[in-house]
Amino acid sequence: MEQESGEAHDPVRVRLDFGYDGTDFCGWAAQPGLRSVEAELSAALARVLRLPGVRLTVAGRTDAGVHATGAVAHLDVPAPAWAALPGRSDRTPQQALPVRLAGVLPPDIVVRAAQVVPSAFDARFSALWRRYEYRLGDRLGWLDPCRRRDTVEIRPQLNVASAHRAAQVLLGLHDFAAFCKRRQGATTIRTLQEFSWRREPDGVVVATVIADAFCHSMVRALVGCTVAVGQGRRPSSWPESVLLGRSRDSGVTVMPARGLCLREVGYPSMTDPVALADRARAARSVRVDLAGRTSE
Amino acid sequence: MEQESGEAHDPVRVRLDFGYDGTDFCGWAAQPGLRSVEAELSAALARVLRLPGVRLTVAGRTDAGVHATGAVAHLDVPAPAWAALPGRSDRTPQQALPVRLAGVLPPDIVVRAAQVVPSAFDARFSALWRRYEYRLGDRLGWLDPCRRRDTVEIRPQLNVASAHRAAQVLLGLHDFAAFCKRRQGATTIRTLQEFSWRREPDGVVVATVIADAFCHSMVRALVGCTVAVGQGRRPSSWPESVLLGRSRDSGVTVMPARGLCLREVGYPSMTDPVALADRARAARSVRVDLAGRTSE
Repeated sequence: MEQESGEAHDPVRVRLDFGYDGTDFCGWAAQPGLRSVEAELSAALARVLRLPGVRLTVAGRTDAGVHATGAVAHLDVPAPAWAALPGRSDRTPQQALPVRLAGVLPPDIVVRAAQVVPSAFDARFSALWRRYEYRLGDRLGWLDPCRRRDTVEIRPQLNVASAHRAAQVLLGLHDFAAFCKRRQGATTIRTLQEFSWRREPDGVVVATVIADAFCHSMVRALVGCTVAVGQGRRPSSWPESVLLGRSRDSGVTVMPARGLCLREVGYPSMTDPVALADRARAARSVRVDLAGRTSE
Repeated sequence: MEQESGEAHDPVRVRLDFGYDGTDFCGWAAQPGLRSVEAELSAALARVLRLPGVRLTVAGRTDAGVHATGAVAHLDVPAPAWAALPGRSDRTPQQALPVRLAGVLPPDIVVRAAQVVPSAFDARFSALWRRYEYRLGDRLGWLDPCRRRDTVEIRPQLNVASAHRAAQVLLGLHDFAAFCKRRQGATTIRTLQEFSWRREPDGVVVATVIADAFCHSMVRALVGCTVAVGQGRRPSSWPESVLLGRSRDSGVTVMPARGLCLREVGYPSMTDPVALADRARAARSVRVDLAGRTSE
Protein backbone atom coordinates (compact mmCIF):
# COMPACT_ATOMS: atom_id res chain seq x y z
CA MET A 1 0.00 0.00 0.00
CA GLU A 2 1.09 3.54 -0.67
CA GLN A 3 1.19 4.56 2.98
CA GLU A 4 3.67 1.79 3.75
CA SER A 5 6.08 2.43 0.90
CA GLY A 6 8.32 4.77 2.94
CA GLU A 7 9.68 8.29 2.72
CA ALA A 8 9.45 8.68 -1.06
CA HIS A 9 5.69 8.44 -0.78
CA ASP A 10 5.21 10.57 2.32
CA PRO A 11 2.72 13.32 1.57
CA VAL A 12 4.17 16.65 0.51
CA ARG A 13 3.31 19.58 2.79
CA VAL A 14 2.50 22.64 0.68
CA ARG A 15 2.19 26.25 1.86
CA LEU A 16 -0.24 28.44 -0.10
CA ASP A 17 -0.08 32.26 -0.05
CA PHE A 18 -3.35 33.75 -1.23
CA GLY A 19 -5.87 36.58 -1.06
CA TYR A 20 -9.57 37.13 -1.50
CA ASP A 21 -12.23 39.77 -1.82
CA GLY A 22 -14.41 38.80 1.13
CA THR A 23 -17.52 40.66 -0.09
CA ASP A 24 -19.36 37.64 -1.45
CA PHE A 25 -18.17 35.00 1.03
CA CYS A 26 -19.67 33.81 4.33
CA GLY A 27 -16.11 33.96 5.65
CA TRP A 28 -13.17 31.57 5.55
CA ALA A 29 -14.89 28.59 7.18
CA ALA A 30 -17.08 26.27 5.13
CA GLN A 31 -20.76 26.38 6.13
CA PRO A 32 -23.52 24.27 4.59
CA GLY A 33 -25.37 26.09 1.82
CA LEU A 34 -23.10 29.17 1.94
CA ARG A 35 -20.21 30.31 -0.26
CA SER A 36 -16.95 30.14 1.73
CA VAL A 37 -13.32 30.74 0.82
CA GLU A 38 -12.40 27.39 2.34
CA ALA A 39 -14.89 25.44 0.21
CA GLU A 40 -14.02 27.27 -3.04
CA LEU A 41 -10.27 26.92 -2.53
CA SER A 42 -10.51 23.27 -1.44
CA ALA A 43 -12.64 22.41 -4.45
CA ALA A 44 -10.21 24.12 -6.84
CA LEU A 45 -7.25 22.30 -5.27
CA ALA A 46 -9.02 18.94 -5.42
CA ARG A 47 -9.78 19.56 -9.07
CA VAL A 48 -6.27 20.48 -10.24
CA LEU A 49 -4.63 17.84 -8.02
CA ARG A 50 -7.23 15.22 -9.06
CA LEU A 51 -7.97 14.28 -5.48
CA PRO A 52 -11.37 13.40 -4.01
CA GLY A 53 -10.94 16.14 -1.39
CA VAL A 54 -8.41 18.42 0.26
CA ARG A 55 -8.10 19.54 3.89
CA LEU A 56 -6.76 23.06 4.47
CA THR A 57 -5.33 24.57 7.65
CA VAL A 58 -5.35 28.37 7.61
CA ALA A 59 -3.67 31.11 9.64
CA GLY A 60 -6.71 33.42 9.82
CA ARG A 61 -10.30 32.18 9.92
CA THR A 62 -11.76 35.50 8.81
CA ASP A 63 -15.42 36.44 9.24
CA ALA A 64 -17.98 37.12 6.52
CA GLY A 65 -16.97 40.15 4.46
CA VAL A 66 -13.38 40.38 5.73
CA HIS A 67 -10.73 40.47 2.98
CA ALA A 68 -7.22 39.06 2.74
CA THR A 69 -4.16 39.83 0.66
CA GLY A 70 -1.70 37.89 2.82
CA ALA A 71 -3.56 34.74 3.89
CA VAL A 72 -1.54 31.54 4.41
CA ALA A 73 -2.73 27.93 4.51
CA HIS A 74 -1.14 24.51 4.30
CA LEU A 75 -2.26 21.18 2.94
CA ASP A 76 -0.76 17.72 2.57
CA VAL A 77 -0.64 16.35 -0.96
CA PRO A 78 0.03 12.66 -1.74
CA ALA A 79 3.43 12.50 -3.45
CA PRO A 80 2.13 10.96 -6.70
CA ALA A 81 -0.54 13.67 -7.11
CA TRP A 82 2.09 16.35 -6.45
CA ALA A 83 4.54 14.88 -8.96
CA ALA A 84 1.82 14.53 -11.60
CA LEU A 85 0.77 18.20 -11.33
CA PRO A 86 2.88 19.95 -13.99
CA GLY A 87 1.46 19.42 -17.45
CA ARG A 88 4.76 20.60 -18.97
CA SER A 89 8.18 19.32 -18.04
CA ASP A 90 9.69 22.82 -17.75
CA ARG A 91 7.63 23.63 -14.68
CA THR A 92 7.95 22.40 -11.13
CA PRO A 93 4.77 21.50 -9.25
CA GLN A 94 5.32 24.65 -7.14
CA GLN A 95 5.31 26.79 -10.28
CA ALA A 96 2.42 24.93 -11.87
CA LEU A 97 -0.02 25.03 -8.96
CA PRO A 98 -0.80 28.82 -8.93
CA VAL A 99 -1.13 28.83 -12.73
CA ARG A 100 -3.49 25.85 -12.75
CA LEU A 101 -5.50 27.27 -9.82
CA ALA A 102 -5.88 30.61 -11.64
CA GLY A 103 -7.68 28.71 -14.37
CA VAL A 104 -10.32 27.25 -12.07
CA LEU A 105 -10.69 29.65 -9.12
CA PRO A 106 -13.45 32.29 -9.08
CA PRO A 107 -12.13 35.82 -9.66
CA ASP A 108 -12.45 36.80 -6.00
CA ILE A 109 -9.78 34.30 -4.84
CA VAL A 110 -6.18 34.61 -5.99
CA VAL A 111 -3.34 32.21 -5.11
CA ARG A 112 -0.02 34.05 -5.19
CA ALA A 113 2.43 31.23 -4.50
CA ALA A 114 2.78 27.57 -3.55
CA GLN A 115 5.87 26.16 -1.89
CA VAL A 116 6.93 22.84 -0.41
CA VAL A 117 7.61 23.28 3.31
CA PRO A 118 8.90 21.03 6.09
CA SER A 119 6.23 18.84 7.66
CA ALA A 120 6.84 20.75 10.91
CA PHE A 121 5.33 23.86 9.31
CA ASP A 122 1.77 24.49 10.40
CA ALA A 123 0.05 27.51 8.82
CA ARG A 124 -1.93 28.09 12.00
CA PHE A 125 0.31 27.03 14.87
CA SER A 126 3.72 28.01 13.47
CA ALA A 127 2.54 31.59 12.96
CA LEU A 128 4.40 34.16 15.07
CA TRP A 129 2.03 37.02 14.34
CA ARG A 130 -0.84 38.21 12.15
CA ARG A 131 -1.05 41.71 10.68
CA TYR A 132 -4.45 43.18 9.87
CA GLU A 133 -5.31 46.57 8.41
CA TYR A 134 -8.57 48.46 8.75
CA ARG A 135 -9.47 51.19 6.21
CA LEU A 136 -11.65 54.17 7.11
CA GLY A 137 -12.86 57.15 5.09
CA ASP A 138 -13.82 60.06 7.34
CA ARG A 139 -14.12 62.95 4.87
CA LEU A 140 -17.30 63.39 2.87
CA GLY A 141 -16.69 62.69 -0.78
CA TRP A 142 -12.99 61.86 -0.43
CA LEU A 143 -13.29 58.12 -0.79
CA ASP A 144 -12.47 56.65 -4.19
CA PRO A 145 -15.84 55.08 -5.14
CA CYS A 146 -13.93 52.01 -6.40
CA ARG A 147 -12.72 51.36 -2.83
CA ARG A 148 -16.08 51.24 -1.09
CA ARG A 149 -15.91 47.41 -0.96
CA ASP A 150 -12.91 47.52 1.38
CA THR A 151 -13.24 50.87 3.15
CA VAL A 152 -15.78 52.00 5.76
CA GLU A 153 -17.04 55.58 5.90
CA ILE A 154 -17.47 57.26 9.25
CA ARG A 155 -18.47 60.74 10.48
CA PRO A 156 -17.40 62.98 12.07
CA GLN A 157 -13.77 63.30 11.02
CA LEU A 158 -11.15 61.45 13.02
CA ASN A 159 -8.25 62.93 14.95
CA VAL A 160 -5.69 60.33 13.85
CA ALA A 161 -3.04 61.39 16.39
CA SER A 162 -5.45 61.03 19.29
CA ALA A 163 -6.69 57.65 18.00
CA HIS A 164 -3.06 56.52 17.74
CA ARG A 165 -2.24 57.66 21.29
CA ALA A 166 -5.32 55.94 22.69
CA ALA A 167 -4.33 52.71 20.93
CA GLN A 168 -0.90 52.55 22.56
CA VAL A 169 -2.21 51.79 26.07
CA LEU A 170 -3.62 48.49 24.74
CA LEU A 171 -0.22 47.14 23.65
CA GLY A 172 1.27 44.12 25.36
CA LEU A 173 0.06 40.87 26.93
CA HIS A 174 -3.51 41.24 28.18
CA ASP A 175 -6.78 39.43 28.53
CA PHE A 176 -8.72 40.98 25.63
CA ALA A 177 -12.05 39.47 26.71
CA ALA A 178 -13.63 42.95 26.61
CA PHE A 179 -12.99 43.06 22.83
CA CYS A 180 -13.90 39.45 21.99
CA LYS A 181 -16.99 37.51 21.22
CA ARG A 182 -16.63 34.83 23.89
CA ARG A 183 -16.26 31.27 22.61
CA GLN A 184 -16.54 28.23 24.85
CA GLY A 185 -13.11 26.97 25.89
CA ALA A 186 -11.12 29.60 23.96
CA THR A 187 -8.59 31.89 25.59
CA THR A 188 -8.84 35.65 25.13
CA ILE A 189 -5.27 36.31 26.26
CA ARG A 190 -3.21 37.80 23.45
CA THR A 191 -0.09 39.89 22.92
CA LEU A 192 -0.88 43.06 20.99
CA GLN A 193 2.42 43.99 19.31
CA GLU A 194 1.33 46.98 17.24
CA PHE A 195 -1.79 49.12 17.03
CA SER A 196 -0.93 52.16 14.93
CA TRP A 197 -2.98 54.76 13.05
CA ARG A 198 -1.99 56.76 10.01
CA ARG A 199 -3.60 58.91 7.32
CA GLU A 200 -2.58 57.94 3.79
CA PRO A 201 -1.80 60.58 1.13
CA ASP A 202 -5.26 59.96 -0.42
CA GLY A 203 -6.96 60.84 2.89
CA VAL A 204 -7.91 57.30 3.90
CA VAL A 205 -7.18 56.40 7.53
CA VAL A 206 -5.51 53.02 8.06
CA ALA A 207 -5.23 51.22 11.40
CA THR A 208 -2.60 48.47 11.60
CA VAL A 209 -2.99 45.77 14.23
CA ILE A 210 -0.41 43.06 14.90
CA ALA A 211 -0.79 40.32 17.51
CA ASP A 212 0.33 36.72 18.02
CA ALA A 213 -3.28 35.76 17.31
CA PHE A 214 -6.73 37.28 17.51
CA CYS A 215 -9.96 36.12 19.02
CA HIS A 216 -13.30 36.53 17.32
CA SER A 217 -14.17 40.13 16.25
CA MET A 218 -11.17 41.46 18.25
CA VAL A 219 -9.64 43.71 15.56
CA ARG A 220 -12.97 45.26 14.66
CA ALA A 221 -13.76 45.94 18.35
CA LEU A 222 -10.29 47.41 18.97
CA VAL A 223 -10.77 49.73 15.99
CA GLY A 224 -14.30 50.70 17.08
CA CYS A 225 -13.13 51.53 20.61
CA THR A 226 -10.28 53.71 19.35
CA VAL A 227 -12.42 55.46 16.73
CA ALA A 228 -14.69 56.65 19.55
CA VAL A 229 -11.69 58.40 21.13
CA GLY A 230 -10.46 59.78 17.79
CA GLN A 231 -13.89 61.26 17.15
CA GLY A 232 -14.01 62.81 20.62
CA ARG A 233 -17.02 60.75 21.68
CA ARG A 234 -15.09 59.06 24.48
CA PRO A 235 -12.21 60.24 26.72
CA SER A 236 -8.70 59.03 25.96
CA SER A 237 -8.77 56.89 29.10
CA TRP A 238 -11.70 54.83 27.82
CA PRO A 239 -9.86 52.03 25.95
CA GLU A 240 -7.90 51.17 29.09
CA SER A 241 -11.00 51.05 31.28
CA VAL A 242 -12.74 48.83 28.70
CA LEU A 243 -9.70 46.50 28.69
CA LEU A 244 -9.63 46.30 32.48
CA GLY A 245 -13.35 45.43 32.53
CA ARG A 246 -12.32 42.02 31.10
CA SER A 247 -15.77 41.22 29.84
CA ARG A 248 -17.47 42.12 26.59
CA ASP A 249 -18.38 45.82 26.66
CA SER A 250 -21.59 46.69 24.86
CA GLY A 251 -20.38 50.29 24.52
CA VAL A 252 -17.72 49.18 22.03
CA THR A 253 -18.82 49.27 18.39
CA VAL A 254 -17.67 46.25 16.39
CA MET A 255 -16.79 47.91 13.08
CA PRO A 256 -18.19 46.55 9.78
CA ALA A 257 -16.29 43.62 8.26
CA ARG A 258 -15.57 45.17 4.86
CA GLY A 259 -12.95 47.60 6.22
CA LEU A 260 -10.80 44.74 7.49
CA CYS A 261 -8.07 42.90 5.60
CA LEU A 262 -5.60 40.21 6.68
CA ARG A 263 -2.37 41.60 5.23
CA GLU A 264 0.42 39.33 6.45
CA VAL A 265 1.25 36.35 8.62
CA GLY A 266 4.73 36.05 10.14
CA TYR A 267 6.56 32.71 10.55
CA PRO A 268 9.96 31.53 11.75
CA SER A 269 12.45 30.70 9.01
CA MET A 270 11.16 27.85 6.84
CA THR A 271 14.65 26.32 6.90
CA ASP A 272 14.46 25.68 10.64
CA PRO A 273 11.99 22.82 11.26
CA VAL A 274 12.79 22.81 14.96
CA ALA A 275 11.76 26.45 15.35
CA LEU A 276 8.60 25.78 13.37
CA ALA A 277 7.59 22.88 15.59
CA ASP A 278 8.74 24.60 18.79
CA ARG A 279 6.69 27.61 17.91
CA ALA A 280 3.63 25.47 17.25
CA ARG A 281 3.98 23.72 20.60
CA ALA A 282 4.70 26.96 22.43
CA ALA A 283 1.69 28.69 20.92
CA ARG A 284 -0.62 26.10 22.36
CA SER A 285 0.92 25.66 25.78
CA VAL A 286 1.52 29.34 26.58
CA ARG A 287 -2.10 30.11 25.94
CA VAL A 288 -3.25 27.28 28.14
CA ASP A 289 -0.96 28.46 30.96
CA LEU A 290 -2.07 32.07 30.80
CA ALA A 291 -5.74 31.40 30.47
CA GLY A 292 -5.92 28.80 33.18
CA ARG A 293 -8.60 26.39 32.14
CA THR A 294 -8.90 27.45 28.49
CA SER A 295 -7.14 26.15 25.39
CA GLU A 296 -6.84 27.14 21.75
CA MET B 1 -39.69 88.46 -14.92
CA GLU B 2 -36.76 86.87 -13.09
CA GLN B 3 -34.40 87.00 -16.07
CA GLU B 4 -34.82 90.75 -16.29
CA SER B 5 -34.36 91.56 -12.63
CA GLY B 6 -30.60 92.08 -12.91
CA GLU B 7 -27.42 90.73 -11.39
CA ALA B 8 -28.88 89.56 -8.09
CA HIS B 9 -30.90 86.95 -9.97
CA ASP B 10 -28.29 85.89 -12.46
CA PRO B 11 -27.83 82.13 -12.24
CA VAL B 12 -24.99 80.94 -10.04
CA ARG B 13 -22.30 78.91 -11.81
CA VAL B 14 -21.27 75.96 -9.65
CA ARG B 15 -18.24 73.71 -10.09
CA LEU B 16 -18.62 70.11 -8.89
CA ASP B 17 -15.66 67.86 -8.09
CA PHE B 18 -16.71 64.23 -8.06
CA GLY B 19 -15.79 60.61 -8.66
CA TYR B 20 -17.46 57.37 -9.65
CA ASP B 21 -16.96 53.64 -9.94
CA GLY B 22 -17.64 53.20 -13.65
CA THR B 23 -18.32 49.44 -13.45
CA ASP B 24 -22.09 49.67 -13.60
CA PHE B 25 -22.47 52.71 -15.87
CA CYS B 26 -22.80 52.98 -19.66
CA GLY B 27 -20.30 55.86 -19.34
CA TRP B 28 -20.65 59.54 -18.55
CA ALA B 29 -23.12 60.43 -21.31
CA ALA B 30 -26.83 59.82 -20.86
CA GLN B 31 -28.23 57.17 -23.20
CA PRO B 32 -31.88 56.11 -23.39
CA GLY B 33 -32.58 53.01 -21.30
CA LEU B 34 -29.04 52.82 -19.87
CA ARG B 35 -27.60 53.84 -16.51
CA SER B 36 -25.23 56.80 -16.98
CA VAL B 37 -23.26 58.99 -14.57
CA GLU B 38 -24.72 62.09 -16.22
CA ALA B 39 -28.33 61.00 -15.74
CA GLU B 40 -27.83 59.85 -12.13
CA LEU B 41 -25.95 63.00 -11.13
CA SER B 42 -28.38 65.32 -12.93
CA ALA B 43 -31.36 63.65 -11.29
CA ALA B 44 -29.78 63.93 -7.83
CA LEU B 45 -28.99 67.63 -8.40
CA ALA B 46 -32.49 68.35 -9.67
CA ARG B 47 -33.90 66.68 -6.59
CA VAL B 48 -31.87 68.50 -3.94
CA LEU B 49 -32.11 71.84 -5.80
CA ARG B 50 -35.86 71.31 -6.44
CA LEU B 51 -35.48 72.05 -10.13
CA PRO B 52 -37.29 70.33 -13.00
CA GLY B 53 -33.96 69.49 -14.60
CA VAL B 54 -30.26 70.28 -14.59
CA ARG B 55 -27.76 70.54 -17.46
CA LEU B 56 -24.20 69.46 -16.71
CA THR B 57 -21.01 70.25 -18.64
CA VAL B 58 -18.19 67.86 -17.84
CA ALA B 59 -14.42 67.82 -18.41
CA GLY B 60 -14.18 64.13 -19.33
CA ARG B 61 -16.92 62.22 -21.14
CA THR B 62 -15.65 58.81 -20.08
CA ASP B 63 -16.64 55.54 -21.76
CA ALA B 64 -18.55 52.65 -20.24
CA GLY B 65 -16.58 51.09 -17.39
CA VAL B 66 -14.05 53.92 -17.00
CA HIS B 67 -13.72 55.30 -13.46
CA ALA B 68 -13.07 58.79 -12.10
CA THR B 69 -11.75 60.18 -8.85
CA GLY B 70 -11.08 63.69 -10.17
CA ALA B 71 -13.97 64.47 -12.51
CA VAL B 72 -15.13 68.10 -12.81
CA ALA B 73 -18.43 69.48 -14.12
CA HIS B 74 -20.27 72.77 -13.98
CA LEU B 75 -23.91 73.74 -13.89
CA ASP B 76 -25.90 76.96 -13.65
CA VAL B 77 -28.30 77.19 -10.75
CA PRO B 78 -31.05 79.84 -10.54
CA ALA B 79 -30.12 82.17 -7.66
CA PRO B 80 -33.28 81.49 -5.60
CA ALA B 81 -32.79 77.72 -5.79
CA TRP B 82 -29.14 78.15 -4.76
CA ALA B 83 -30.01 80.42 -1.82
CA ALA B 84 -32.74 78.03 -0.64
CA LEU B 85 -30.41 75.00 -0.58
CA PRO B 86 -29.08 74.96 3.01
CA GLY B 87 -31.62 73.52 5.41
CA ARG B 88 -29.65 74.97 8.32
CA SER B 89 -28.47 78.55 8.62
CA ASP B 90 -24.96 77.60 9.74
CA ARG B 91 -24.14 76.14 6.31
CA THR B 92 -23.45 77.86 3.02
CA PRO B 93 -25.01 76.39 -0.14
CA GLN B 94 -21.50 75.25 -1.14
CA GLN B 95 -21.16 73.27 2.09
CA ALA B 96 -24.71 71.96 1.95
CA LEU B 97 -24.69 70.62 -1.61
CA PRO B 98 -22.25 67.68 -1.19
CA VAL B 99 -23.94 66.65 2.06
CA ARG B 100 -27.41 66.74 0.49
CA LEU B 101 -26.19 64.92 -2.62
CA ALA B 102 -24.59 62.18 -0.49
CA GLY B 103 -28.08 61.46 0.82
CA VAL B 104 -29.61 60.84 -2.60
CA LEU B 105 -26.79 59.66 -4.88
CA PRO B 106 -26.20 55.95 -5.51
CA PRO B 107 -23.08 54.61 -3.72
CA ASP B 108 -21.02 54.49 -6.93
CA ILE B 109 -21.05 58.30 -7.36
CA VAL B 110 -19.44 60.60 -4.81
CA VAL B 111 -19.43 64.41 -4.93
CA ARG B 112 -16.37 65.75 -3.13
CA ALA B 113 -16.94 69.49 -3.32
CA ALA B 114 -19.13 72.25 -4.78
CA GLN B 115 -17.94 75.80 -5.28
CA VAL B 116 -19.29 78.95 -6.84
CA VAL B 117 -17.10 79.94 -9.78
CA PRO B 118 -16.98 82.89 -12.20
CA SER B 119 -19.37 82.53 -15.13
CA ALA B 120 -16.28 82.47 -17.39
CA PHE B 121 -15.38 79.07 -15.94
CA ASP B 122 -16.29 76.19 -18.24
CA ALA B 123 -15.56 72.71 -16.90
CA ARG B 124 -14.85 71.50 -20.42
CA PHE B 125 -13.31 74.42 -22.28
CA SER B 126 -11.38 76.10 -19.44
CA ALA B 127 -9.50 72.87 -18.73
CA LEU B 128 -5.74 73.09 -19.35
CA TRP B 129 -5.11 69.37 -19.08
CA ARG B 130 -6.60 66.03 -18.07
CA ARG B 131 -4.66 63.39 -16.12
CA TYR B 132 -5.64 59.74 -16.50
CA GLU B 133 -4.13 56.69 -14.85
CA TYR B 134 -4.24 53.11 -16.10
CA ARG B 135 -3.68 50.21 -13.65
CA LEU B 136 -2.18 46.88 -14.75
CA GLY B 137 -1.38 43.70 -12.83
CA ASP B 138 1.24 41.62 -14.64
CA ARG B 139 2.26 39.09 -11.96
CA LEU B 140 0.13 36.04 -11.39
CA GLY B 141 -1.55 36.19 -8.01
CA TRP B 142 -0.12 39.56 -7.00
CA LEU B 143 -3.24 41.60 -7.57
CA ASP B 144 -5.31 42.45 -4.49
CA PRO B 145 -8.61 40.69 -5.32
CA CYS B 146 -10.46 43.79 -4.05
CA ARG B 147 -8.86 45.83 -6.87
CA ARG B 148 -10.00 43.73 -9.81
CA ARG B 149 -12.73 46.26 -10.63
CA ASP B 150 -10.16 48.93 -11.46
CA THR B 151 -7.09 46.94 -12.53
CA VAL B 152 -6.50 44.86 -15.67
CA GLU B 153 -4.40 41.70 -15.57
CA ILE B 154 -1.98 40.99 -18.39
CA ARG B 155 0.63 38.31 -19.18
CA PRO B 156 3.52 38.05 -19.72
CA GLN B 157 5.21 40.36 -17.24
CA LEU B 158 5.97 43.90 -18.33
CA ASN B 159 9.36 45.57 -18.56
CA VAL B 160 8.28 48.90 -17.08
CA ALA B 161 11.48 50.74 -18.05
CA SER B 162 11.13 49.73 -21.70
CA ALA B 163 7.41 50.65 -21.73
CA HIS B 164 8.34 54.03 -20.25
CA ARG B 165 11.07 54.68 -22.84
CA ALA B 166 8.74 53.71 -25.70
CA ALA B 167 6.11 56.11 -24.39
CA GLN B 168 8.42 59.15 -24.46
CA VAL B 169 8.58 59.33 -28.28
CA LEU B 170 4.85 60.06 -28.32
CA LEU B 171 5.12 63.25 -26.25
CA GLY B 172 4.32 66.61 -27.79
CA LEU B 173 1.89 68.04 -30.33
CA HIS B 174 0.84 65.35 -32.82
CA ASP B 175 -2.07 64.10 -34.84
CA PHE B 176 -3.09 61.09 -32.71
CA ALA B 177 -5.51 59.73 -35.35
CA ALA B 178 -3.75 56.34 -35.18
CA PHE B 179 -4.86 56.01 -31.54
CA CYS B 180 -8.38 57.40 -31.89
CA LYS B 181 -11.76 56.15 -32.83
CA ARG B 182 -12.54 58.62 -35.60
CA ARG B 183 -15.55 60.87 -35.03
CA GLN B 184 -17.09 63.02 -37.73
CA GLY B 185 -15.83 66.59 -37.52
CA ALA B 186 -13.59 66.07 -34.47
CA THR B 187 -9.90 66.86 -34.45
CA THR B 188 -7.39 64.22 -33.39
CA ILE B 189 -4.59 66.73 -32.80
CA ARG B 190 -3.54 66.78 -29.17
CA THR B 191 -0.56 67.74 -27.01
CA LEU B 192 0.64 64.77 -24.99
CA GLN B 193 2.35 66.32 -21.96
CA GLU B 194 3.21 63.22 -19.94
CA PHE B 195 3.12 59.49 -20.59
CA SER B 196 5.00 57.81 -17.76
CA TRP B 197 5.13 54.27 -16.39
CA ARG B 198 5.93 53.15 -12.86
CA ARG B 199 5.62 50.05 -10.71
CA GLU B 200 3.98 50.70 -7.33
CA PRO B 201 5.30 49.12 -4.10
CA ASP B 202 2.42 46.59 -4.24
CA GLY B 203 3.54 45.40 -7.71
CA VAL B 204 0.80 47.11 -9.73
CA VAL B 205 1.97 48.95 -12.85
CA VAL B 206 0.50 52.43 -13.32
CA ALA B 207 0.64 54.44 -16.56
CA THR B 208 0.01 58.18 -16.21
CA VAL B 209 -1.16 60.10 -19.27
CA ILE B 210 -1.60 63.88 -19.34
CA ALA B 211 -2.80 65.84 -22.39
CA ASP B 212 -4.72 69.02 -23.10
CA ALA B 213 -7.59 66.78 -24.14
CA PHE B 214 -8.16 63.26 -25.42
CA CYS B 215 -10.10 61.84 -28.31
CA HIS B 216 -12.20 58.73 -28.07
CA SER B 217 -10.35 55.61 -26.74
CA MET B 218 -7.01 57.44 -27.04
CA VAL B 219 -5.61 56.66 -23.57
CA ARG B 220 -6.51 53.00 -23.83
CA ALA B 221 -4.91 52.71 -27.28
CA LEU B 222 -1.75 54.53 -26.13
CA VAL B 223 -1.48 52.12 -23.20
CA GLY B 224 -2.12 49.07 -25.41
CA CYS B 225 0.54 50.15 -27.91
CA THR B 226 3.15 50.69 -25.19
CA VAL B 227 2.29 47.45 -23.36
CA ALA B 228 3.17 45.56 -26.57
CA VAL B 229 6.68 47.04 -26.41
CA GLY B 230 6.99 46.45 -22.66
CA GLN B 231 6.09 42.79 -23.15
CA GLY B 232 8.59 42.45 -25.98
CA ARG B 233 5.91 41.66 -28.58
CA ARG B 234 6.79 44.76 -30.63
CA PRO B 235 10.06 46.64 -31.20
CA SER B 236 10.66 49.88 -29.36
CA SER B 237 10.28 51.81 -32.62
CA TRP B 238 6.71 50.62 -33.09
CA PRO B 239 4.79 53.38 -31.24
CA GLU B 240 6.43 56.04 -33.41
CA SER B 241 5.62 54.21 -36.64
CA VAL B 242 2.00 53.78 -35.48
CA LEU B 243 1.82 57.51 -34.71
CA LEU B 244 3.24 58.47 -38.11
CA GLY B 245 0.68 56.22 -39.83
CA ARG B 246 -1.93 58.84 -38.83
CA SER B 247 -4.85 56.49 -39.27
CA ARG B 248 -6.35 53.99 -36.90
CA ASP B 249 -4.02 51.00 -36.57
CA SER B 250 -5.76 47.66 -36.10
CA GLY B 251 -2.53 46.25 -34.59
CA VAL B 252 -3.01 48.45 -31.52
CA THR B 253 -4.99 46.84 -28.71
CA VAL B 254 -7.48 49.17 -27.06
CA MET B 255 -7.13 48.12 -23.43
CA PRO B 256 -10.21 47.25 -21.32
CA ALA B 257 -12.07 50.20 -19.80
CA ARG B 258 -11.93 49.10 -16.17
CA GLY B 259 -8.17 49.83 -15.80
CA LEU B 260 -8.70 53.50 -16.65
CA CYS B 261 -9.45 56.31 -14.21
CA LEU B 262 -9.76 60.09 -14.71
CA ARG B 263 -7.64 61.35 -11.83
CA GLU B 264 -7.42 65.12 -12.24
CA VAL B 265 -8.35 68.06 -14.44
CA GLY B 266 -6.17 71.17 -14.44
CA TYR B 267 -7.57 74.73 -14.74
CA PRO B 268 -6.22 78.27 -14.65
CA SER B 269 -6.66 80.12 -11.38
CA MET B 270 -10.35 80.48 -10.55
CA THR B 271 -9.69 84.08 -9.48
CA ASP B 272 -8.74 85.08 -13.03
CA PRO B 273 -11.92 85.15 -15.15
CA VAL B 274 -10.00 86.52 -18.13
CA ALA B 275 -7.63 83.53 -18.15
CA LEU B 276 -10.58 81.16 -17.82
CA ALA B 277 -12.36 82.67 -20.80
CA ASP B 278 -9.15 83.10 -22.86
CA ARG B 279 -8.33 79.49 -22.27
CA ALA B 280 -11.78 78.40 -23.37
CA ARG B 281 -11.57 80.45 -26.58
CA ALA B 282 -8.01 79.34 -27.26
CA ALA B 283 -8.85 75.70 -26.77
CA ARG B 284 -11.44 75.84 -29.50
CA SER B 285 -9.61 77.97 -32.03
CA VAL B 286 -6.20 76.27 -31.78
CA ARG B 287 -7.77 72.95 -32.48
CA VAL B 288 -9.61 74.27 -35.48
CA ASP B 289 -6.40 75.83 -36.84
CA LEU B 290 -4.31 72.70 -36.44
CA ALA B 291 -6.85 70.30 -37.73
CA GLY B 292 -7.79 72.33 -40.77
CA ARG B 293 -11.45 71.67 -41.42
CA THR B 294 -12.30 70.04 -38.10
CA SER B 295 -13.64 71.53 -34.89
CA GLU B 296 -14.23 70.36 -31.32
